[in-house]
Amino acid sequence: MDRLTIIKVGGKVVEDQQALELMLDQFKRISGYKLLVHGGGTLATSLANQLGVETTMVEGRRITSSAMLDVVTMVYGGLVNKRIVAGLQARNCNALGMTGADMSLVRTRKRPVQTIDYGFVGDVEEVNTRELRLLLNENVVPVIAPITHDGKGLLLNTNADTMAAELAADLAAFYNVFLFFCFEKRGVLLDPANDASVIYELDYLQFEDYKTQGIISSGMIPKLENAFSAKKRGVKEVLITNAESIANGRGTRIV
Amino acid sequence: MDRLTIIKVGGKVVEDQQALELMLDQFKRISGYKLLVHGGGTLATSLANQLGVETTMVEGRRITSSAMLDVVTMVYGGLVNKRIVAGLQARNCNALGMTGADMSLVRTRKRPVQTIDYGFVGDVEEVNTRELRLLLNENVVPVIAPITHDGKGLLLNTNADTMAAELAADLAAFYNVFLFFCFEKRGVLLDPANDASVIYELDYLQFEDYKTQGIISSGMIPKLENAFSAKKRGVKEVLITNAESIANGRGTRIV
Repeated sequence: MDRLTIIKVGGKVVEDQQALELMLDQFKRISGYKLLVHGGGTLATSLANQLGVETTMVEGRRITSSAMLDVVTMVYGGLVNKRIVAGLQARNCNALGMTGADMSLVRTRKRPVQTIDYGFVGDVEEVNTRELRLLLNENVVPVIAPITHDGKGLLLNTNADTMAAELAADLAAFYNVFLFFCFEKRGVLLDPANDASVIYELDYLQFEDYKTQGIISSGMIPKLENAFSAKKRGVKEVLITNAESIANGRGTRIV
Repeated sequence: MDRLTIIKVGGKVVEDQQALELMLDQFKRISGYKLLVHGGGTLATSLANQLGVETTMVEGRRITSSAMLDVVTMVYGGLVNKRIVAGLQARNCNALGMTGADMSLVRTRKRPVQTIDYGFVGDVEEVNTRELRLLLNENVVPVIAPITHDGKGLLLNTNADTMAAELAADLAAFYNVFLFFCFEKRGVLLDPANDASVIYELDYLQFEDYKTQGIISSGMIPKLENAFSAKKRGVKEVLITNAESIANGRGTRIV
Protein backbone atom coordinates (compact mmCIF):
# COMPACT_ATOMS: atom_id res chain seq x y z
CA MET A 1 0.00 0.00 0.00
CA ASP A 2 1.07 3.57 -0.66
CA ARG A 3 1.93 5.93 2.14
CA LEU A 4 -0.57 8.62 3.11
CA THR A 5 0.39 11.29 5.63
CA ILE A 6 -2.42 13.02 7.50
CA ILE A 7 -1.48 16.20 9.33
CA LYS A 8 -3.81 17.83 11.80
CA VAL A 9 -2.95 21.42 12.68
CA GLY A 10 -4.69 23.91 14.90
CA GLY A 11 -4.11 26.70 17.35
CA LYS A 12 -1.46 29.32 16.65
CA VAL A 13 -0.38 27.61 13.41
CA VAL A 14 -3.58 28.65 11.65
CA GLU A 15 -4.12 32.00 13.40
CA ASP A 16 -0.81 33.57 12.59
CA GLN A 17 0.16 34.16 8.95
CA GLN A 18 3.88 33.64 9.59
CA ALA A 19 3.39 30.40 11.56
CA LEU A 20 1.05 29.22 8.80
CA GLU A 21 3.63 29.87 6.08
CA LEU A 22 6.28 27.94 8.05
CA MET A 23 3.93 24.99 8.53
CA LEU A 24 3.05 24.97 4.81
CA ASP A 25 6.78 24.93 3.97
CA GLN A 26 7.13 21.81 6.14
CA PHE A 27 3.97 20.25 4.74
CA LYS A 28 5.16 20.78 1.17
CA ARG A 29 8.25 18.64 1.91
CA ILE A 30 6.20 15.54 2.80
CA SER A 31 6.52 13.01 0.01
CA GLY A 32 3.74 10.70 -1.09
CA TYR A 33 0.03 11.24 -0.69
CA LYS A 34 -0.98 13.76 1.95
CA LEU A 35 -3.95 15.42 3.52
CA LEU A 36 -4.36 18.30 5.97
CA VAL A 37 -7.05 18.69 8.63
CA HIS A 38 -7.18 22.07 10.33
CA GLY A 39 -8.97 23.76 13.19
CA GLY A 40 -9.55 27.48 13.44
CA GLY A 41 -7.77 28.38 16.64
CA THR A 42 -9.02 31.53 18.29
CA LEU A 43 -10.03 33.14 14.97
CA ALA A 44 -13.62 31.93 15.41
CA THR A 45 -13.76 33.25 18.97
CA SER A 46 -12.40 36.59 17.82
CA LEU A 47 -14.96 36.92 14.96
CA ALA A 48 -17.72 35.82 17.37
CA ASN A 49 -16.66 38.58 19.79
CA GLN A 50 -16.79 41.17 17.02
CA LEU A 51 -20.30 40.01 16.11
CA GLY A 52 -21.47 39.86 19.73
CA VAL A 53 -21.86 36.07 19.60
CA GLU A 54 -21.04 34.51 22.96
CA THR A 55 -18.41 31.76 23.17
CA THR A 56 -18.90 28.98 25.72
CA MET A 57 -16.38 26.19 26.11
CA VAL A 58 -16.95 23.02 28.17
CA GLU A 59 -14.03 20.62 28.63
CA GLY A 60 -12.19 22.10 25.65
CA ARG A 61 -15.25 21.77 23.41
CA ARG A 62 -17.12 24.70 21.98
CA ILE A 63 -20.85 24.95 22.65
CA THR A 64 -22.21 25.71 19.20
CA SER A 65 -25.26 27.94 19.03
CA SER A 66 -26.88 28.63 15.67
CA ALA A 67 -25.02 31.96 15.41
CA MET A 68 -21.75 30.26 16.40
CA LEU A 69 -22.31 27.58 13.74
CA ASP A 70 -22.43 30.36 11.11
CA VAL A 71 -19.23 31.82 12.58
CA VAL A 72 -17.29 28.53 12.46
CA THR A 73 -18.65 27.75 8.99
CA MET A 74 -17.31 31.12 7.82
CA VAL A 75 -13.99 30.97 9.67
CA TYR A 76 -13.08 27.27 9.37
CA GLY A 77 -14.85 26.46 6.09
CA GLY A 78 -14.11 29.83 4.45
CA LEU A 79 -11.28 32.01 5.70
CA VAL A 80 -8.80 29.54 7.20
CA ASN A 81 -9.51 26.80 4.66
CA LYS A 82 -9.04 29.04 1.61
CA ARG A 83 -5.95 30.75 3.02
CA ILE A 84 -4.33 27.33 3.39
CA VAL A 85 -5.46 26.31 -0.10
CA ALA A 86 -4.01 29.46 -1.69
CA GLY A 87 -0.79 28.97 0.29
CA LEU A 88 -0.43 25.38 -0.89
CA GLN A 89 -1.27 26.23 -4.50
CA ALA A 90 1.55 28.79 -4.36
CA ARG A 91 3.82 25.88 -3.31
CA ASN A 92 2.70 23.70 -6.23
CA CYS A 93 0.56 21.46 -4.01
CA ASN A 94 -2.75 20.97 -5.77
CA ALA A 95 -4.90 21.66 -2.71
CA LEU A 96 -8.65 21.20 -2.55
CA GLY A 97 -10.37 22.73 0.46
CA MET A 98 -13.42 20.97 1.77
CA THR A 99 -15.53 20.18 4.83
CA GLY A 100 -17.12 16.92 5.93
CA ALA A 101 -20.30 18.02 4.13
CA ASP A 102 -18.54 18.11 0.76
CA MET A 103 -18.95 14.83 -1.11
CA SER A 104 -20.46 13.68 2.21
CA LEU A 105 -16.97 12.97 3.48
CA VAL A 106 -18.07 12.90 7.13
CA ARG A 107 -21.71 12.48 8.04
CA THR A 108 -22.54 13.15 11.66
CA ARG A 109 -25.49 13.20 14.01
CA LYS A 110 -26.35 16.15 16.22
CA ARG A 111 -25.08 15.20 19.66
CA PRO A 112 -27.99 14.16 21.90
CA VAL A 113 -28.49 16.36 24.95
CA GLN A 114 -27.46 14.58 28.14
CA THR A 115 -26.11 16.68 30.98
CA ILE A 116 -24.73 19.27 28.53
CA ASP A 117 -26.41 20.64 25.40
CA TYR A 118 -23.51 21.08 22.98
CA GLY A 119 -25.78 22.68 20.40
CA PHE A 120 -24.89 22.19 16.75
CA VAL A 121 -22.14 19.66 17.35
CA GLY A 122 -21.99 16.49 15.28
CA ASP A 123 -20.78 13.04 16.34
CA VAL A 124 -19.40 10.95 13.48
CA GLU A 125 -21.74 8.38 11.97
CA GLU A 126 -20.21 7.62 8.56
CA VAL A 127 -16.99 8.40 6.72
CA ASN A 128 -17.06 8.17 2.93
CA THR A 129 -13.68 8.52 1.23
CA ARG A 130 -14.51 7.07 -2.20
CA GLU A 131 -14.21 10.33 -4.17
CA LEU A 132 -11.45 11.59 -1.87
CA ARG A 133 -9.31 8.58 -2.78
CA LEU A 134 -9.84 9.21 -6.49
CA LEU A 135 -8.52 12.72 -5.91
CA LEU A 136 -5.58 11.61 -3.75
CA ASN A 137 -4.55 9.28 -6.55
CA GLU A 138 -4.55 12.31 -8.88
CA ASN A 139 -2.16 14.03 -6.46
CA VAL A 140 -4.81 16.38 -5.15
CA VAL A 141 -4.10 17.44 -1.56
CA PRO A 142 -7.33 17.66 0.46
CA VAL A 143 -7.47 20.41 3.09
CA ILE A 144 -10.29 19.64 5.47
CA ALA A 145 -12.17 21.99 7.80
CA PRO A 146 -13.93 20.50 10.84
CA ILE A 147 -17.51 21.14 9.70
CA THR A 148 -19.74 18.17 8.92
CA HIS A 149 -23.38 17.55 7.96
CA ASP A 150 -26.19 15.24 9.04
CA GLY A 151 -27.35 14.32 5.54
CA LYS A 152 -30.63 16.16 6.15
CA GLY A 153 -29.38 19.65 5.37
CA LEU A 154 -27.90 20.56 8.74
CA LEU A 155 -24.29 21.66 9.06
CA LEU A 156 -22.60 20.64 12.32
CA ASN A 157 -19.41 21.53 14.15
CA THR A 158 -17.09 18.57 14.75
CA ASN A 159 -13.82 18.45 16.65
CA ALA A 160 -10.86 18.62 14.23
CA ASP A 161 -8.86 15.94 16.10
CA THR A 162 -11.84 13.61 15.82
CA MET A 163 -12.17 14.35 12.09
CA ALA A 164 -8.48 13.57 11.56
CA ALA A 165 -8.68 10.32 13.56
CA GLU A 166 -11.85 9.14 11.80
CA LEU A 167 -10.46 9.91 8.35
CA ALA A 168 -7.18 8.19 9.22
CA ALA A 169 -8.99 5.08 10.47
CA ASP A 170 -11.12 4.87 7.32
CA LEU A 171 -8.20 5.45 4.96
CA ALA A 172 -6.06 2.86 6.78
CA ALA A 173 -7.85 0.22 4.70
CA PHE A 174 -6.35 1.73 1.54
CA TYR A 175 -3.04 3.32 2.54
CA ASN A 176 -0.25 3.05 5.08
CA VAL A 177 -1.48 6.00 7.10
CA PHE A 178 0.84 8.20 9.15
CA LEU A 179 -1.17 10.54 11.36
CA PHE A 180 0.43 13.59 12.98
CA PHE A 181 -1.43 15.70 15.53
CA CYS A 182 0.45 19.00 15.54
CA PHE A 183 0.16 21.54 18.33
CA GLU A 184 2.40 24.06 20.10
CA LYS A 185 4.62 21.60 22.00
CA ARG A 186 7.11 19.01 20.74
CA GLY A 187 4.96 16.22 22.16
CA VAL A 188 3.09 15.19 25.27
CA LEU A 189 5.07 16.57 28.23
CA LEU A 190 5.75 14.93 31.60
CA ASP A 191 6.12 18.43 33.03
CA PRO A 192 4.07 21.13 31.26
CA ALA A 193 6.62 23.74 32.37
CA ASN A 194 9.50 21.87 30.73
CA ASP A 195 9.37 21.70 26.95
CA ALA A 196 12.17 19.13 26.92
CA SER A 197 10.20 16.58 28.98
CA VAL A 198 8.64 14.94 25.93
CA ILE A 199 7.21 11.45 26.47
CA TYR A 200 8.60 9.65 23.42
CA GLU A 201 6.37 6.60 23.56
CA LEU A 202 2.95 6.27 25.10
CA ASP A 203 0.77 3.19 25.45
CA TYR A 204 -2.78 3.10 26.73
CA LEU A 205 -1.92 1.83 30.23
CA GLN A 206 0.61 4.63 30.74
CA PHE A 207 -1.93 7.11 29.40
CA GLU A 208 -4.49 5.93 31.98
CA ASP A 209 -1.83 6.14 34.64
CA TYR A 210 -0.75 9.68 33.66
CA LYS A 211 -4.41 10.74 33.64
CA THR A 212 -4.87 9.45 37.20
CA GLN A 213 -1.73 11.30 38.28
CA GLY A 214 -2.97 14.50 36.59
CA ILE A 215 0.10 14.62 34.32
CA ILE A 216 -2.17 14.42 31.28
CA SER A 217 -5.25 16.59 31.66
CA SER A 218 -7.92 18.81 30.01
CA GLY A 219 -7.66 19.23 26.21
CA MET A 220 -4.88 16.64 25.89
CA ILE A 221 -7.23 13.85 27.03
CA PRO A 222 -9.67 13.90 24.07
CA LYS A 223 -6.71 14.45 21.69
CA LEU A 224 -5.03 11.28 23.00
CA GLU A 225 -8.31 9.34 23.01
CA ASN A 226 -8.54 10.18 19.29
CA ALA A 227 -4.92 9.18 18.79
CA PHE A 228 -5.34 5.79 20.49
CA SER A 229 -8.58 5.15 18.64
CA ALA A 230 -6.85 5.75 15.27
CA LYS A 231 -3.91 3.52 16.21
CA LYS A 232 -6.23 0.72 17.32
CA ARG A 233 -8.14 0.95 14.05
CA GLY A 234 -5.16 0.25 11.81
CA VAL A 235 -3.34 3.56 11.42
CA LYS A 236 0.31 2.64 11.02
CA GLU A 237 1.81 5.46 13.02
CA VAL A 238 0.30 8.15 15.23
CA LEU A 239 2.43 10.99 16.51
CA ILE A 240 1.73 14.01 18.72
CA THR A 241 4.19 16.73 17.81
CA ASN A 242 4.59 20.29 16.58
CA ALA A 243 4.54 21.58 13.00
CA GLU A 244 8.33 21.99 12.93
CA SER A 245 8.78 18.26 13.60
CA ILE A 246 6.59 17.02 10.72
CA ALA A 247 9.63 16.37 8.56
CA ASN A 248 11.80 14.53 11.13
CA GLY A 249 8.95 12.53 12.69
CA ARG A 250 9.89 13.21 16.33
CA GLY A 251 7.37 13.62 19.12
CA THR A 252 5.15 11.38 21.23
CA ARG A 253 4.59 8.09 19.44
CA ILE A 254 1.38 6.19 20.26
CA VAL A 255 2.12 2.49 20.78
CA MET B 1 -20.93 14.74 -25.97
CA ASP B 2 -22.83 14.56 -22.70
CA ARG B 3 -24.97 17.38 -21.51
CA LEU B 4 -23.68 19.62 -18.70
CA THR B 5 -25.96 22.24 -17.16
CA ILE B 6 -24.31 25.19 -15.45
CA ILE B 7 -26.55 27.28 -13.23
CA LYS B 8 -25.44 30.63 -11.88
CA VAL B 9 -27.51 31.96 -9.01
CA GLY B 10 -27.15 35.08 -6.94
CA GLY B 11 -29.10 37.79 -5.16
CA LYS B 12 -32.17 36.89 -3.13
CA VAL B 13 -31.90 33.20 -4.03
CA VAL B 14 -28.84 32.75 -1.84
CA GLU B 15 -29.75 35.25 0.90
CA ASP B 16 -33.10 33.84 1.82
CA GLN B 17 -33.33 30.29 3.20
CA GLN B 18 -36.78 29.67 1.68
CA ALA B 19 -35.81 30.95 -1.78
CA LEU B 20 -32.66 28.83 -1.56
CA GLU B 21 -34.62 25.67 -0.75
CA LEU B 22 -36.95 26.28 -3.71
CA MET B 23 -34.00 26.80 -6.05
CA LEU B 24 -32.33 23.61 -4.82
CA ASP B 25 -35.56 21.69 -5.45
CA GLN B 26 -35.46 22.94 -9.08
CA PHE B 27 -31.75 22.25 -9.39
CA LYS B 28 -32.18 18.70 -8.15
CA ARG B 29 -34.58 18.01 -11.05
CA ILE B 30 -31.96 18.78 -13.71
CA SER B 31 -30.85 15.56 -15.35
CA GLY B 32 -27.32 14.87 -16.55
CA TYR B 33 -24.14 16.47 -15.30
CA LYS B 34 -24.57 19.75 -13.49
CA LEU B 35 -22.67 22.47 -11.70
CA LEU B 36 -23.73 25.47 -9.65
CA VAL B 37 -21.97 28.85 -9.44
CA HIS B 38 -23.24 31.19 -6.76
CA GLY B 39 -22.75 34.75 -5.60
CA GLY B 40 -23.39 35.94 -2.08
CA GLY B 41 -26.03 38.59 -2.56
CA THR B 42 -26.19 41.17 0.18
CA LEU B 43 -24.99 38.72 2.87
CA ALA B 44 -21.40 39.94 2.43
CA THR B 45 -22.50 43.58 2.68
CA SER B 46 -24.46 42.81 5.80
CA LEU B 47 -21.55 41.01 7.52
CA ALA B 48 -19.23 43.83 6.43
CA ASN B 49 -21.57 46.35 8.07
CA GLN B 50 -21.60 44.37 11.30
CA LEU B 51 -17.79 44.33 11.28
CA GLY B 52 -17.50 48.00 10.36
CA VAL B 53 -15.97 47.20 6.96
CA GLU B 54 -17.02 49.75 4.36
CA THR B 55 -18.71 48.56 1.13
CA THR B 56 -18.01 50.48 -2.07
CA MET B 57 -19.59 49.50 -5.37
CA VAL B 58 -18.58 50.92 -8.78
CA GLU B 59 -20.68 49.93 -11.82
CA GLY B 60 -22.13 46.94 -10.00
CA ARG B 61 -18.70 45.69 -8.97
CA ARG B 62 -17.51 45.56 -5.41
CA ILE B 63 -14.30 47.37 -4.50
CA THR B 64 -12.46 44.73 -2.47
CA SER B 65 -10.27 45.98 0.36
CA SER B 66 -8.19 43.48 2.33
CA ALA B 67 -10.85 43.38 5.08
CA MET B 68 -13.59 42.95 2.47
CA LEU B 69 -11.67 40.08 0.87
CA ASP B 70 -11.78 38.27 4.23
CA VAL B 71 -15.52 38.97 4.43
CA VAL B 72 -16.31 37.58 0.96
CA THR B 73 -14.02 34.59 1.55
CA MET B 74 -16.00 33.83 4.71
CA VAL B 75 -19.45 34.51 3.28
CA TYR B 76 -19.12 33.18 -0.28
CA GLY B 77 -16.50 30.48 0.30
CA GLY B 78 -17.80 29.46 3.73
CA LEU B 79 -21.36 30.23 4.77
CA VAL B 80 -23.25 30.35 1.46
CA ASN B 81 -21.20 27.62 -0.19
CA LYS B 82 -21.59 25.13 2.66
CA ARG B 83 -25.30 25.88 3.14
CA ILE B 84 -25.85 25.01 -0.51
CA VAL B 85 -23.70 21.88 -0.22
CA ALA B 86 -25.63 20.65 2.84
CA GLY B 87 -28.92 21.42 1.07
CA LEU B 88 -27.90 19.45 -2.01
CA GLN B 89 -26.55 16.53 0.02
CA ALA B 90 -29.97 16.35 1.72
CA ARG B 91 -31.43 16.02 -1.80
CA ASN B 92 -29.07 13.18 -2.74
CA CYS B 93 -26.94 15.41 -4.98
CA ASN B 94 -23.31 14.65 -4.16
CA ALA B 95 -22.23 18.29 -3.91
CA LEU B 96 -18.65 19.48 -3.52
CA GLY B 97 -18.22 23.12 -2.58
CA MET B 98 -15.17 24.87 -3.88
CA THR B 99 -13.68 28.18 -5.01
CA GLY B 100 -11.49 28.99 -7.98
CA ALA B 101 -8.46 28.50 -5.73
CA ASP B 102 -9.33 24.85 -5.08
CA MET B 103 -7.53 22.54 -7.50
CA SER B 104 -6.56 25.83 -9.17
CA LEU B 105 -9.88 25.83 -11.00
CA VAL B 106 -9.68 29.53 -11.87
CA ARG B 107 -6.38 31.37 -11.68
CA THR B 108 -6.65 35.14 -11.91
CA ARG B 109 -4.47 38.22 -11.86
CA LYS B 110 -5.08 41.16 -9.54
CA ARG B 111 -6.75 43.77 -11.70
CA PRO B 112 -4.26 46.52 -12.63
CA VAL B 113 -5.16 49.97 -11.36
CA GLN B 114 -6.30 52.24 -14.18
CA THR B 115 -8.84 54.93 -13.34
CA ILE B 116 -10.34 52.79 -10.56
CA ASP B 117 -8.48 50.66 -7.99
CA TYR B 118 -10.75 47.65 -7.56
CA GLY B 119 -8.51 46.27 -4.81
CA PHE B 120 -8.35 42.50 -4.42
CA VAL B 121 -10.29 41.68 -7.58
CA GLY B 122 -9.00 39.05 -9.96
CA ASP B 123 -9.33 38.93 -13.76
CA VAL B 124 -9.33 35.42 -15.19
CA GLU B 125 -6.04 34.16 -16.61
CA GLU B 126 -6.45 30.38 -16.69
CA VAL B 127 -9.24 27.87 -16.19
CA ASN B 128 -8.24 24.30 -15.28
CA THR B 129 -11.08 21.79 -15.25
CA ARG B 130 -9.08 18.55 -15.43
CA GLU B 131 -9.88 17.31 -11.90
CA LEU B 132 -13.33 18.89 -12.03
CA ARG B 133 -14.22 16.75 -15.05
CA LEU B 134 -13.06 13.60 -13.27
CA LEU B 135 -15.47 14.50 -10.47
CA LEU B 136 -18.34 15.38 -12.81
CA ASN B 137 -17.96 11.97 -14.41
CA GLU B 138 -18.34 10.44 -10.91
CA ASN B 139 -21.62 12.35 -10.55
CA VAL B 140 -20.17 14.86 -8.14
CA VAL B 141 -21.97 18.23 -8.35
CA PRO B 142 -19.51 21.12 -7.98
CA VAL B 143 -20.80 24.19 -6.14
CA ILE B 144 -18.52 27.09 -6.90
CA ALA B 145 -18.03 30.31 -4.95
CA PRO B 146 -16.63 33.37 -6.79
CA ILE B 147 -13.26 33.50 -5.06
CA THR B 148 -10.11 32.82 -7.09
CA HIS B 149 -6.35 32.89 -6.55
CA ASP B 150 -3.31 34.25 -8.35
CA GLY B 151 -1.14 31.12 -7.95
CA LYS B 152 1.19 33.09 -5.67
CA GLY B 153 -0.83 32.72 -2.50
CA LEU B 154 -3.24 35.61 -2.95
CA LEU B 155 -6.99 35.06 -2.85
CA LEU B 156 -8.99 37.36 -5.11
CA ASN B 157 -12.64 38.29 -5.55
CA THR B 158 -14.03 37.52 -9.01
CA ASN B 159 -17.47 38.27 -10.42
CA ALA B 160 -19.71 35.18 -10.24
CA ASP B 161 -21.19 35.76 -13.74
CA THR B 162 -17.67 35.89 -15.14
CA MET B 163 -16.73 32.68 -13.29
CA ALA B 164 -19.79 30.91 -14.72
CA ALA B 165 -19.10 32.13 -18.27
CA GLU B 166 -15.40 31.20 -18.14
CA LEU B 167 -16.12 27.73 -16.75
CA ALA B 168 -18.85 27.19 -19.35
CA ALA B 169 -16.54 28.24 -22.18
CA ASP B 170 -13.76 25.91 -21.00
CA LEU B 171 -16.10 22.96 -20.43
CA ALA B 172 -17.73 23.45 -23.86
CA ALA B 173 -14.79 21.51 -25.32
CA PHE B 174 -15.90 18.43 -23.34
CA TYR B 175 -19.68 18.70 -22.90
CA ASN B 176 -22.77 20.17 -24.53
CA VAL B 177 -22.98 23.05 -22.08
CA PHE B 178 -26.26 24.72 -21.16
CA LEU B 179 -25.61 27.89 -19.15
CA PHE B 180 -28.39 29.55 -17.15
CA PHE B 181 -27.88 32.93 -15.49
CA CYS B 182 -30.59 33.08 -12.84
CA PHE B 183 -31.74 36.30 -11.23
CA GLU B 184 -34.98 37.82 -9.88
CA LYS B 185 -36.74 38.39 -13.24
CA ARG B 186 -37.97 35.91 -15.84
CA GLY B 187 -35.47 37.28 -18.36
CA VAL B 188 -34.15 40.52 -19.79
CA LEU B 189 -37.07 42.96 -19.80
CA LEU B 190 -38.00 45.54 -22.44
CA ASP B 191 -39.71 47.50 -19.68
CA PRO B 192 -38.20 47.06 -16.19
CA ALA B 193 -41.62 47.90 -14.67
CA ASN B 194 -43.35 45.11 -16.59
CA ASP B 195 -42.31 41.58 -15.64
CA ALA B 196 -44.13 40.17 -18.66
CA SER B 197 -42.02 42.14 -21.17
CA VAL B 198 -39.37 39.40 -21.47
CA ILE B 199 -37.14 39.58 -24.56
CA TYR B 200 -37.19 35.93 -25.67
CA GLU B 201 -34.25 36.11 -28.05
CA LEU B 202 -31.35 38.50 -27.99
CA ASP B 203 -28.50 38.84 -30.48
CA TYR B 204 -25.47 41.07 -30.10
CA LEU B 205 -26.70 43.81 -32.48
CA GLN B 206 -30.00 44.11 -30.60
CA PHE B 207 -28.06 44.17 -27.33
CA GLU B 208 -25.94 47.07 -28.57
CA ASP B 209 -29.09 48.81 -29.76
CA TYR B 210 -30.90 48.32 -26.41
CA LYS B 211 -27.82 49.62 -24.60
CA THR B 212 -27.84 52.80 -26.70
CA GLN B 213 -31.54 53.25 -26.01
CA GLY B 214 -30.96 52.73 -22.27
CA ILE B 215 -33.32 49.71 -22.19
CA ILE B 216 -30.44 47.54 -21.01
CA SER B 217 -28.33 49.27 -18.38
CA SER B 218 -26.15 49.01 -15.26
CA GLY B 219 -25.62 45.50 -13.83
CA MET B 220 -27.36 43.82 -16.77
CA ILE B 221 -24.61 44.98 -19.18
CA PRO B 222 -21.68 42.97 -17.72
CA LYS B 223 -24.04 39.99 -17.20
CA LEU B 224 -24.96 40.03 -20.91
CA GLU B 225 -21.35 40.58 -21.98
CA ASN B 226 -20.51 37.40 -20.08
CA ALA B 227 -23.46 35.63 -21.68
CA PHE B 228 -22.45 36.62 -25.23
CA SER B 229 -18.83 35.74 -24.56
CA ALA B 230 -19.83 32.21 -23.43
CA LYS B 231 -22.11 31.71 -26.44
CA LYS B 232 -19.38 32.87 -28.85
CA ARG B 233 -16.92 30.42 -27.25
CA GLY B 234 -18.95 27.32 -27.94
CA VAL B 235 -21.52 27.10 -25.15
CA LYS B 236 -24.54 25.43 -26.73
CA GLU B 237 -27.24 27.44 -25.04
CA VAL B 238 -27.15 30.53 -22.83
CA LEU B 239 -30.28 31.68 -21.04
CA ILE B 240 -31.03 34.59 -18.70
CA THR B 241 -33.91 33.59 -16.48
CA ASN B 242 -35.07 33.08 -12.90
CA ALA B 243 -34.58 30.06 -10.66
CA GLU B 244 -38.20 28.92 -11.13
CA SER B 245 -37.66 28.61 -14.89
CA ILE B 246 -34.59 26.33 -14.73
CA ALA B 247 -36.71 23.27 -15.39
CA ASN B 248 -38.76 24.61 -18.34
CA GLY B 249 -35.89 26.48 -19.97
CA ARG B 250 -37.80 29.72 -20.61
CA GLY B 251 -36.25 33.17 -20.46
CA THR B 252 -34.00 35.31 -22.64
CA ARG B 253 -32.08 33.14 -25.07
CA ILE B 254 -28.73 34.45 -26.32
CA VAL B 255 -28.43 33.93 -30.09
